[in-house]
Parts: sequence; structure tokens; C-alpha cells
Amino acid sequence: MQSTAVSFDGASLSLSLITEKVDVPPVGGLIARVTMAGICGTDAHRLVGDVPKEDAPISFGHEAVGVVAELGVGRVTDWHGQNLAVGDRITWFPPAAGCGHCQNCLDDFFLLCEEETWPYPSSRPNPAGFQQYATLSARVPVYKVPNDIPDEAYVAFGCALPTAVNGMDVLGQILPAQTVLVQGCGPVGLASIALATLASPAQLIVIGAPAKRLEWATRLGATTALDITTTTQAERAERVRELTDGRGADVVIEAAGQPAAFTEGIELLARRGRYLISGLFSGSRTVEVNPVLINNRSLHIMGNLGGKRGNLGNAVALASRLQRRFAIADLVTDRFELAEIATAIRSSGIGLSTKTVVVP
Amino acid sequence: MQSTAVSFDGASLSLSLITEKVDVPPVGGLIARVTMAGICGTDAHRLVGDVPKEDAPISFGHEAVGVVAELGVGRVTDWHGQNLAVGDRITWFPPAAGCGHCQNCLDDFFLLCEEETWPYPSSRPNPAGFQQYATLSARVPVYKVPNDIPDEAYVAFGCALPTAVNGMDVLGQILPAQTVLVQGCGPVGLASIALATLASPAQLIVIGAPAKRLEWATRLGATTALDITTTTQAERAERVRELTDGRGADVVIEAAGQPAAFTEGIELLARRGRYLISGLFSGSRTVEVNPVLINNRSLHIMGNLGGKRGNLGNAVALASRLQRRFAIADLVTDRFELAEIATAIRSSGIGLSTKTVVVP
Repeated sequence: MQSTAVSFDGASLSLSLITEKVDVPPVGGLIARVTMAGICGTDAHRLVGDVPKEDAPISFGHEAVGVVAELGVGRVTDWHGQNLAVGDRITWFPPAAGCGHCQNCLDDFFLLCEEETWPYPSSRPNPAGFQQYATLSARVPVYKVPNDIPDEAYVAFGCALPTAVNGMDVLGQILPAQTVLVQGCGPVGLASIALATLASPAQLIVIGAPAKRLEWATRLGATTALDITTTTQAERAERVRELTDGRGADVVIEAAGQPAAFTEGIELLARRGRYLISGLFSGSRTVEVNPVLINNRSLHIMGNLGGKRGNLGNAVALASRLQRRFAIADLVTDRFELAEIATAIRSSGIGLSTKTVVVP
Repeated sequence: MQSTAVSFDGASLSLSLITEKVDVPPVGGLIARVTMAGICGTDAHRLVGDVPKEDAPISFGHEAVGVVAELGVGRVTDWHGQNLAVGDRITWFPPAAGCGHCQNCLDDFFLLCEEETWPYPSSRPNPAGFQQYATLSARVPVYKVPNDIPDEAYVAFGCALPTAVNGMDVLGQILPAQTVLVQGCGPVGLASIALATLASPAQLIVIGAPAKRLEWATRLGATTALDITTTTQAERAERVRELTDGRGADVVIEAAGQPAAFTEGIELLARRGRYLISGLFSGSRTVEVNPVLINNRSLHIMGNLGGKRGNLGNAVALASRLQRRFAIADLVTDRFELAEIATAIRSSGIGLSTKTVVVP
């Protein structure tokens, strides 16, 4: 079987289409025909060289939906134990294979795998999303998707949803009397808002832009939306103080992907406040932090790269629920073919679309 | 009853001795004759104006041991429910009264009390340590001390011990395969080392100075001591990598009280590493931090000002145990009378003594 796949050469920062031979599925694994793959902010970072380069050309794309084309020997169910057959619709998370034996993998933190098995060289079959046929080893988590939900429902939030689910897991309980503030209303921000809403906090404030995304934030449960393009940092701080009787936010989730947001967010925290950094992927810009403030206010700052494989099933369940309630498939605003991958990634990187996808 | 007390005027940064009238103990409280009071780094910060100034002259000193001089109406036990009588030896923690009704007090985080009831104006009877007779309200935690242990056993670590106990509570479990690194070997560092030893980590590294304190660190359980005066930051990083198969420390406890330690400590962390800031009290110096690193490595950074009143009993129990095992009373190297308080605090601030106390 022939498959067209995207190959990225880190040395020249160039993309090309290659033809791969896809043959026998691995033992315990499967071959999937990709029906839709989402573009993540990380992909745009990769194209400008922000992400550490690989030695050889790679396959990538880590937000995928498709159908089972062929099952490997011994593969009979998805990761929730549901029977799996050729033709079934599935979603999978390619970076989640991990080496399986380092301490981080053993603790289920596959994205922190010491051997960093993602991304894969494009010279051999692999589970990446930007190709027609993906080859999944037994260790790539696979979940069936209900037939009454479109592909877009899973790609709408993409990896932002498992990231947000894991963030909430890291963050711990949000109590009903507490105030949650989310910085940013891209996919990670919106997914975090949807999850924070489930905890019924007293206030759920979002700081972001543009207006269209802030509308989505409100639709998903934000009780106050502060537009970063029409307010100053001082005005936002004043508003947060007003809304919290001068205490500040108990929880701040950084989903803006901007180091400057860290400085602003820390200042908005109440004593014993918790700060989750979900929104930064790459770069080396530093910001000024006063560690005395972290000590004196007994703050908690938690980094969340993505997290546990065990939370992927929660993200799939949540995507189904959100789609039934909010039609989140509408978040997908831009569609491209595989041959247009460079345009797709660059237009996504500019941030004008809400969510961009590729249909191989 | 007349009592000589230290009064500090923040406006002029000056100390004076005043005579107070100590009369009837509060309902449910007690009057204690102070037999020994420790000097903490915070006291030295206060004298140079690092700590926010108070409106009126204050009483301070928050590491105290004494004997019950008079019991208030209804006061019959210490905070562990042991019977209390005039003449009993006790230790208490003056800042732990709190307002009792803000959310932080309700959650037992008295040092984060929204009303900040500590320190007290010196114009009225109060529980501060730098005076002959302390007046304790019903809300100041009091614990009996065993008669076979000297006062020094409780003052040796002073507030550093409850701080370290609370730090461990905030930090969470240390697993046997993990590496713990402690920055600093003053009282908070040494207390943290003693507590980390109880968790039996694979490695317990300390970075600090001078040699005498590093010896104490080793005596208390450190497996590797790195002298900050004879090693470079690069050498220390290399040594930590060697000791951890290149992974870095799973837990770093900042007890150095230097913002620069924060920058070094973050870099020494393994993926998913936990960083506890226990050692900073005041000042506004900032350091450069890369929030992307916190995200990418999924780090946790936790501030620990001091913490829970419920942990004070744990600190008292630990001081007794440590004294029986290590004769920690030997940590007290310098003794002063109340009239020499300024000299006592300034000499403590220079850091030449291991622990300085006042004997009123």
C-alpha cells in the first residue's frame, strides 16, 4: 500500500511530500487511514526553528482521527477495552508511545520520556498524523470515537484537550468558593475554561483576544472576559481585585504561550494561589521573577507539558460531551489538503483561524 | 508584675527596652516566663528595614521556650491535650494566633492570615519572645516540653523546624529511589536535611557553607556535601549530574535565602522535579526565570512561608527526637542577655554563629 506523507527536514526547515510503503501492521498495533489531522501551535514553532532540531527528516502531526485499515496480530480492542474492527473510527495520540521503561514512562508521563521517542524519522512507517496511512505500534493509545460525532469534535481542541485535562490533574481540586483565571483563549485556554467550568468556581475570568475567541470562552463558562487588546495590565489587575474582594485569583492557568503572561499572572494570585503553566512550548526568553513573592505568599507554580497517557481517555470522553453540548466542531474554521501543509501550518501560526486542520 | 520587653520602632529602625505591666492572663490563655528565645534571620532583616514597617512600635521574637507563670480561666491543657500546670515547661509560636476567621486561618495557614496579626504593638501585653513575661491568648499554640531536654533543643532550629516540617507537607512524598538536594545549611537547611533523611532518599546532597555547618548537614544525614565557597556552579551541576545518572535532582529545597539560589536550583532539577522555596523571607530582588523550562520539564515550584499550625506539634516532637539522637542543643553557640538584643541580632545576621539565643 502506498501512502503520501509529510517529511520535515529540520536542518533546512523545509517540508516535502514523500511516498512511503505501508505494509504489515505491527504485532498488537494497527494501520489507520487518517481522515483528519489538527495543526497545533507546536507545529508552527517547528517550522520557524523554535523546537530542537532532529538529526534526520521526521514525520509529525500529533492530533489525528481516522479509521482502522488493518489490525495487527493480537490487536482486538481500543485502550478502553472496546472491541476494535476494520472500519471503526478512532483517534490516537502519536507522541504517547514512550520508551515504556524509563521512570517517567513507568509513572505514565510519556511526554517526559527520557528517550523522547517523538517525533519519528520519516524513513519508516510511524503513527504521525500528517500522512494518509499511519502505522501505530501496540504502545500508541487508541480510542474509538462515537459515530454520531464528526471528526472535527476530536480535532477541534486537539492536543490542547489532553493537555488541559492533565493540567487539572496536576493542579488539583478547584473549590466552589474559589476564583479561577485563565490567561489566553486559544485551544489550551478554551479547553481549560471548559474543564474549570465543570468545577463550578465562584468566578471564572478569562484574559485574551480576539473577541471571537472570548465569545467562545463565555459560551464555555467564563463569567468575566477581559480583552487584552482594549485593557491595560493595571486595569485587569484592578478588575481581578474587585471581583475577588481584593484577594486575587486562587488559581491562574497560563494558556497564552507568552512568557510575559507569567509575570502578570503571578501578580494576580491570592495567597496560597496555584499557577499552572500549560501554554508554553518552546523558546528561551526569560522573565523577571521575585522568588521572595513565591515564598511569602506560599504560591504553587506547576509546569504542565502534557502529561499522562491515562488522561487521554478522559479527553476523548470530554470531547464527546462538549460536542453534544456546545458543537465544538464549529471551532474548526480552516481546512487544507495534505499538499498544502506548509500554508496550513503558517496560517495557523499567525493565529487568525480558530482551528486549522488537514484532510489527507 | 513588671516585665522588661524589647520594643522596635520601624520608623527609626531602633530597638529599646521598655517596662510593661503584666497582669491577668486572658481567658483560656496564660502568662509564661520566657527562659530562652531564639533569633531568626527574619529578625536581622527587620533591623535593616527589609521587612515591611509597622505603624507603631512592636514586640517581636517568635522562637520561645519558658515556664507557665499563670494560667487563665479555663486553660487546662496544652495543644496536644496534656494537662498544664504552673511551673510546666512549654514552647509556643507567637505568630500562630491568626485572626481565626479568614479562609487561610480556617485552612490552618495562620502565617498567611489576611489580617496579619503578627507582630503585636508593644503597647500591650503580647506573646512575643523577646521579653521576660509573655502573655498568650487562647489561640497561641502551646506545647509542653519534656523535662529531660534542654531549652536549647527547641530553640536550636527555632522557627526553621516548623518551617521545614510544613515544607515537607507541601512538598509531598519523597520516594526511596529519588534524589533530594538542599541549598543552604542554616537552620532551615539543616532542619530540612533532618526531615529528608527520615524519607530515606537514594541521595541527599547539600550545597552550602561554612564547613562547620556542612559537617552538621552530614551528621544529620546528607550523603554528599558541596561547599559553595570552593566549587563553581558548573562544578556543582556536573557533580549532581554524575550522582543522578544525568537526570538531575527529583527534589530541591531552597533554604539559602538567596534569590540566586533559585536560578541555580531550577537548573539542577530532573524532569517532573519539585522545588520548594523555604529559605527566603524578604527583599524585592528578582531573578531571570525561563517559564518555558518550567513547562517543558513539568516542574513544580512551591513557596513555603511557614505554614500550618497543625504542624507545630510535629516540629516539637521532632525536636525531642533529634535532641536524643544528635544533641542538637549544641547548635546554640551564642547566648546574650535581653539588654544586648541589638548586638545579638546583628551578630546573628552576620551568620558567624550557628544559632544565637537570648536568655531574658
